[in-house]
Amino acid sequence: MNMTKRKIKLVIHYDGSRYYGWAAQPGRPTIQGAIQEAFEALCGQGIEVVGSSRTDAGVHALGQVAHADLTGCPVPTANLQKALNNLLPGEIAVAGVEEVHESFDAIRSTLSKEYRYTIYTDMIRPVLEIHRCWHYPYKLDMEAMRQAAERLIGTHDFKSFASAGDQRQSSVRTVNRCEVIGEGPRLFVDVQADGFLYNMVRNIVGTLVEVGRGRWKPERIEAILDARDRAAAGPIAPAGGLCLMRIFY
Amino acid sequence: MNMTKRKIKLVIHYDGSRYYGWAAQPGRPTIQGAIQEAFEALCGQGIEVVGSSRTDAGVHALGQVAHADLTGCPVPTANLQKALNNLLPGEIAVAGVEEVHESFDAIRSTLSKEYRYTIYTDMIRPVLEIHRCWHYPYKLDMEAMRQAAERLIGTHDFKSFASAGDQRQSSVRTVNRCEVIGEGPRLFVDVQADGFLYNMVRNIVGTLVEVGRGRWKPERIEAILDARDRAAAGPIAPAGGLCLMRIFY
Repeated sequence: MNMTKRKIKLVIHYDGSRYYGWAAQPGRPTIQGAIQEAFEALCGQGIEVVGSSRTDAGVHALGQVAHADLTGCPVPTANLQKALNNLLPGEIAVAGVEEVHESFDAIRSTLSKEYRYTIYTDMIRPVLEIHRCWHYPYKLDMEAMRQAAERLIGTHDFKSFASAGDQRQSSVRTVNRCEVIGEGPRLFVDVQADGFLYNMVRNIVGTLVEVGRGRWKPERIEAILDARDRAAAGPIAPAGGLCLMRIFY
Repeated sequence: MNMTKRKIKLVIHYDGSRYYGWAAQPGRPTIQGAIQEAFEALCGQGIEVVGSSRTDAGVHALGQVAHADLTGCPVPTANLQKALNNLLPGEIAVAGVEEVHESFDAIRSTLSKEYRYTIYTDMIRPVLEIHRCWHYPYKLDMEAMRQAAERLIGTHDFKSFASAGDQRQSSVRTVNRCEVIGEGPRLFVDVQADGFLYNMVRNIVGTLVEVGRGRWKPERIEAILDARDRAAAGPIAPAGGLCLMRIFY
């Protein structure tokens, strides 16, 4: 058996609509669980796959990153991607595999992350992507949403946008990008930050939609941030619209 | 109770990936079954919804048409679309409802139908649309496929493209359009005809892919048509790539 130290970085895509989120849970289909099963079938040993983001049930990814220690696994790194994809269900794909220095850690080495949230605004619901968007068939004022989004950029205490259950010590984060993009019937909210509190993107989107439908003015964002209270922000947007796009190291 | 004669035409969209096809079957989720259940909940009586195409398990639609006799149902036609959509699962949507003359028949009044088949050719599988395409990560010669597709246009005996189980008396059909369209990593095959034999589009696509990967020359289409034998054509393409786009009356 080859006992040379070997650590790999994986880039992973998935449709989360039929899964109970990233984190493995006994007796339930999860993304981490499916990937660890594929590794076990391939390497003949249990392998822990550590993901950068513990995405919730129904959330998707086109750029999740994970690391795994493959010391003792006989499969060459060059063969891993194809072999894993042959074993994984169609909704999960390994988009890249590379060997990394043992100091690389998918969670701790993260510099920033980018999410995209998709809202679909046409009246008739988009059946072919219904689990990958929030169907919101009403008029949204994109300009007002953009003005609100701009107010979230920068270093702020985002406590008002963290759902209960957030375990992080500090709720101060730096949002580098918060953009509202219209594309036909779709409206994307792209958020890039050095880190995210629990449900932060979905709570931001729910708040921007309150602005877009005219219930709140864009200026209200300042008061929401100042409140440091989840009750001050808008309702949470549904999980299916959220997709983890990229993790920067 | 209002016993005025009332017949309606419905336009229906669906993602068929979690359904056992259009036609109702006891104990299994089907599109027709789901819509008939919604009608029963709404109108308080069993209503038969007759679809133009009995699409197979896994096949989608953005333009299925059905008729239903609503004589005796108390709900006004203008309220039906919204009420049905509130009752239907997210993967099924009623995109239009209109009253029609009692002579209208979703099956018999059909002049022609149009299907789109989607092939995805990039190496990494498209997890977010994996149930809505055929992931075929190899090079396809689009020009050769186009030359083959052109040979299918016109009135021919399409027996070689009918799967076993086809019940139709004649296998002669007129294909008005058979187009191969490239769009980034996606390749669409659009087929419009006055009628289709069982699995005809999927058997055409499987044959065009044999041409596209260089196994057969485009000219072979003539010999395949002449053979009037399913074994002469290519393998059937997977159901998930197929979408019923439109029915012309």
